[in-house]
Amino acid sequence: MKAPNAEIVSIGTELLQAASADTNSLYLVEQLQGIGIEISYRTVVGDDRRRIHQVLQEALDRADVVVVTGGLGPTQDDRTRDALADVSGRRLVLHSKTLKGIEERFARRAVAMPEAAKRQAWVPEGFVVLDNRHGTAPGLLWEEGERLLVALPGPPREMHPLFVEQVLPVLLRMAGNGQRIRARTVKVCGLFESQVEERMKELLHGDHPPVSLLARPGEVHVRVTAAGRGEEVESQLQLWEEKLRNLLGEAVFGVDEERLEEAIGWLLRRAGKTVAIAESCTGGLICHRITNVPSSSDYFKRGIVSYSNRAKEDLLGVPFSVIERHGAVSPEVAVAMAAGVRRVAGTDLGVGVTGIAGPGGGSETKPVGLTFIALADAQGEEWCEHRFRFDREGNKLWASQMALEMLRRYLLKISGQD
Amino acid sequence: MKAPNAEIVSIGTELLQAASADTNSLYLVEQLQGIGIEISYRTVVGDDRRRIHQVLQEALDRADVVVVTGGLGPTQDDRTRDALADVSGRRLVLHSKTLKGIEERFARRAVAMPEAAKRQAWVPEGFVVLDNRHGTAPGLLWEEGERLLVALPGPPREMHPLFVEQVLPVLLRMAGNGQRIRARTVKVCGLFESQVEERMKELLHGDHPPVSLLARPGEVHVRVTAAGRGEEVESQLQLWEEKLRNLLGEAVFGVDEERLEEAIGWLLRRAGKTVAIAESCTGGLICHRITNVPSSSDYFKRGIVSYSNRAKEDLLGVPFSVIERHGAVSPEVAVAMAAGVRRVAGTDLGVGVTGIAGPGGGSETKPVGLTFIALADAQGEEWCEHRFRFDREGNKLWASQMALEMLRRYLLKISGQD
Repeated sequence: MKAPNAEIVSIGTELLQAASADTNSLYLVEQLQGIGIEISYRTVVGDDRRRIHQVLQEALDRADVVVVTGGLGPTQDDRTRDALADVSGRRLVLHSKTLKGIEERFARRAVAMPEAAKRQAWVPEGFVVLDNRHGTAPGLLWEEGERLLVALPGPPREMHPLFVEQVLPVLLRMAGNGQRIRARTVKVCGLFESQVEERMKELLHGDHPPVSLLARPGEVHVRVTAAGRGEEVESQLQLWEEKLRNLLGEAVFGVDEERLEEAIGWLLRRAGKTVAIAESCTGGLICHRITNVPSSSDYFKRGIVSYSNRAKEDLLGVPFSVIERHGAVSPEVAVAMAAGVRRVAGTDLGVGVTGIAGPGGGSETKPVGLTFIALADAQGEEWCEHRFRFDREGNKLWASQMALEMLRRYLLKISGQD
Repeated sequence: MKAPNAEIVSIGTELLQAASADTNSLYLVEQLQGIGIEISYRTVVGDDRRRIHQVLQEALDRADVVVVTGGLGPTQDDRTRDALADVSGRRLVLHSKTLKGIEERFARRAVAMPEAAKRQAWVPEGFVVLDNRHGTAPGLLWEEGERLLVALPGPPREMHPLFVEQVLPVLLRMAGNGQRIRARTVKVCGLFESQVEERMKELLHGDHPPVSLLARPGEVHVRVTAAGRGEEVESQLQLWEEKLRNLLGEAVFGVDEERLEEAIGWLLRRAGKTVAIAESCTGGLICHRITNVPSSSDYFKRGIVSYSNRAKEDLLGVPFSVIERHGAVSPEVAVAMAAGVRRVAGTDLGVGVTGIAGPGGGSETKPVGLTFIALADAQGEEWCEHRFRFDREGNKLWASQMALEMLRRYLLKISGQD
């Protein structure tokens, strides 16, 4: 049996704006590939009834499965329901159970229901209505012959559970016992993309190497895909991961969704160490990243964003004479910040970062992007120097990445000494 | 003369991964729309020579302009050059000027050139080679009859200047004196999407209303498009913006790329006020956002991420008795944090945020998402309570948004009193 192929259609004029990332279709790609359904196309179209109709018609002509997201909301620019009616040749009818659900939802929140909210209860006749526990717009599913058309609301927290709970079972039935395709991403820090490629040269040949590289700010991601039945896929990926870990060593900080700040959380827990952060040019980003990890308060105790010389003196005890002699952006100040925050917070470790994020503030001797990062423990301090060449936010991101990486390498080293 | 229509093709297996947002094509949409070129499709395809060839062939059959990004890098999985050769019926030839440029680039950085880097100097015969000042892979341009095929490297800092400097002029020539389509986004904080829609009801009718709404975390974006020649478009947009500002009043904090933290920067500057931030549950995010704005050190003096009770006592002078009596997540502690950070920093204003970001740490009386935000000035403090229902990062983001909005409304109020 041939595995079905799918197309993903994302609807919303906002997706044709530079600020909007089409994260829904990326989620769907991952989910569909995971059950062996190949995605042939991803298309984006604005909130235009005629154009949505046309795109859906083309997709239904080519694919076995068409998954649509977006354009199901209450506002007048949401046109997906109309286009679904057009392409299926059905009329829109009022779905009373959905209407009741919407009314109850507003009543429960003690908010007056806007008239427009009712629009979401109109569905094309004969479509299966998928109950949305996290929002007001239901999902819609239409099976005709061998083809499946599914429409899901755009907000991810509504779309994800609807897909997993109500669409996936139908797709699994269609996909039958075909092959599964799975991917694993091994994430690397502290090596350039070309260095990673050099180390894994023999894995990257042929027209369809199962391995691909992706450079991210301060990271390189190595993605491996494997195809097969049942547990076979899992063990193939496991072998690949081991192979990559052998080739790349300590540079690997995690796999798949794991983030650098999570890896550091684990290492701090394992070492039983606590940390405090003193940030200048990164402006709070390092603390923000560390505290994105649940329960990080177990090892992260405080952060100081010392955005003025006075803050560096008052809060971190950086002597004014050091700032005066070496400048606020200097190894000496980074070291004093790391040691200072460690001392006042009473933590095992302290990190200090000072630099020039830009675009202003640079000089010939201290250009924009120049950054010093220091790490303090009970034995003393170490520091390193970087020169980033990005815009303000890029320089902040890279500096936060290099500070976290310095902390990670330190934690690996001390755990190796145990 | 009919304006040309374009398709955008993004190449890269990583773009079929959930972690990758296809920001390049969004950039290109904005650019192309800006000069009156309509985008009919956006397609994403993996690093597969045969499939890229097929997608390019289809796109060239339908569109006047095809812009391709990605897959031009040095690694073996980059297949775009081969597919461009396939679809144009040309062979790949070594472009010596490009090779020399690559060699010099590595020499300048005193890094050994990996053998693979040379792959980027092979180009389809007869294609125009677009010099890339920010990277090693050149852009490629092929004009055949009325059709234009352009391939640009994937990294945005290489792609953007190449597009603006070398592709845009060619496109402007093609687009001739056709209509320009421009958009403006008016950004709102402090109103729900349904409230925004209610206020601008009469603007949202018909099948192609020029106005659309988009909900973002803690913000609503109202996007207006206008078409016309020359300055006509600009004055239409200006009228729309005024209309929206009248309907939405103070809730409007900016337009287009302007961010809430930038609006606050302006208001602080205008009022001549300085601010310090004490964050608990937001973990540094508020400081990070404020410091994303260039020269924010003029008004932002310090931030305290008090992730432990001891930090709240030591750094902010929050009395232990207050924490003991009311709990760390309470209006009393938020107020003491705001007043404390203002006092120790010597700033005009202080902001304090305490809450439960989740997923752990909640209780029946103090559930996950409960957040208190306080603002202190020389006259005293005010506070507000929120209950967010997102995941950890969503709760952090919303809390940062509501804290910035509270500060914005305060600054609007005091500037109104002048």
